[in-house]
Amino acid sequence: MTEPPAPAAHPRDDAVIDLLGALSYAQLTGFQALASAAGRAPDLRTTTSFARLAVAMFGRFERVGARLAGLGVAQPDAMAPFVAAIDAFHARTAPSDWLEAIVKAYVGDGIVRDFYTQMAAHLDPDNRDFVVRLIGDAGAAETIVALVRPVIAADPRAAGRLALWARRIMGEAVQQTQSVAVERPSLTALLVGGEPGSDVAEVGRMFGRIAEAHTARMQSLGLAS
Amino acid sequence: MTEPPAPAAHPRDDAVIDLLGALSYAQLTGFQALASAAGRAPDLRTTTSFARLAVAMFGRFERVGARLAGLGVAQPDAMAPFVAAIDAFHARTAPSDWLEAIVKAYVGDGIVRDFYTQMAAHLDPDNRDFVVRLIGDAGAAETIVALVRPVIAADPRAAGRLALWARRIMGEAVQQTQSVAVERPSLTALLVGGEPGSDVAEVGRMFGRIAEAHTARMQSLGLAS
Repeated sequence: MTEPPAPAAHPRDDAVIDLLGALSYAQLTGFQALASAAGRAPDLRTTTSFARLAVAMFGRFERVGARLAGLGVAQPDAMAPFVAAIDAFHARTAPSDWLEAIVKAYVGDGIVRDFYTQMAAHLDPDNRDFVVRLIGDAGAAETIVALVRPVIAADPRAAGRLALWARRIMGEAVQQTQSVAVERPSLTALLVGGEPGSDVAEVGRMFGRIAEAHTARMQSLGLAS
Repeated sequence: MTEPPAPAAHPRDDAVIDLLGALSYAQLTGFQALASAAGRAPDLRTTTSFARLAVAMFGRFERVGARLAGLGVAQPDAMAPFVAAIDAFHARTAPSDWLEAIVKAYVGDGIVRDFYTQMAAHLDPDNRDFVVRLIGDAGAAETIVALVRPVIAADPRAAGRLALWARRIMGEAVQQTQSVAVERPSLTALLVGGEPGSDVAEVGRMFGRIAEAHTARMQSLGLAS
């Protein structure tokens, strides 16, 4: 594709705002999911650990909000276009017990981190640094792996059920992200390196890379993906 | 009663640990209730406000945890004796919608603050200062009043339903606190000024004062108690 992108006021700025808005709503609902998981924890120490993860997630949400404010955008306005897709994701992956809740936290956190790591490569240096620092701060993964591994090692039936569950979360995340990509062309253009036209194939390749990282995460959890 | 208190190792220290343990679990479950209320909010700004209140509540929980650590007590151990009563309170006051959730947040926050304000009068200066500063930091009330008043002013039927709901929350809180007081004599002694014997009458008077404060709060919300 050699034609210039379709004329929009600031397609790249719009895309950055979209990126930060989608991340904000993923974080806000992630906060709620972690707080809810805390309520299912088997003991008070784990409840406290999960509440702490939720609060750390909200701290990152506030940092993204401050960045959006710096761009002159109210965070709720930036989030609004992504509410339907992310709410649909959560509605279709509502955990039925503690193990499903923490596997969802782990898989969801990993997908968001992979997605934004992929995205960051296509951002200007300033926004890239912001996203990389933000994503680098997430420390939920180790806490969750330490909780889930012994359960899976001790209970092969749980492992089978949770492997299916993780696959379903990955599938729903891909589906909802694709539905957003279709509706937000400037975001999709950013996502694939700013070159509209090669979108479909490149989006497919990006999901391929995210799926590979997902497989590696499942193995570190003791699950076949 | 002129006899000295019953001989126990450090009844006053035990009572302070109980006080901070009960407060911790009220805060931890309060955090979860506020995070869950955030998920029912009618718009993203209000969701964010409630998530922020939840995070502030957790910040106070962490301050109490640090204080307990200074006394050589792990926060989960201090919380454990109060889990049954506080869980029972939440199970019996599970909100069925957004308005019930925020009225519960307001009433519950007020009861906890009144209770600890009453308690503080009987503490040594150091612990009193800690409790007073901690309780003074709570800023949920104004946020909630601003949200609820217009709804109640516009809908007299909602007002009637929510007045009943608030009364039920108050009743459950009193009942669960009494069940704890029966089981924790050193806490009850602290609660009534360190003089076992006049317990029953004094606990009754304390609840009378909390009920008066509750009535005033209901009026500021636009509800008859």
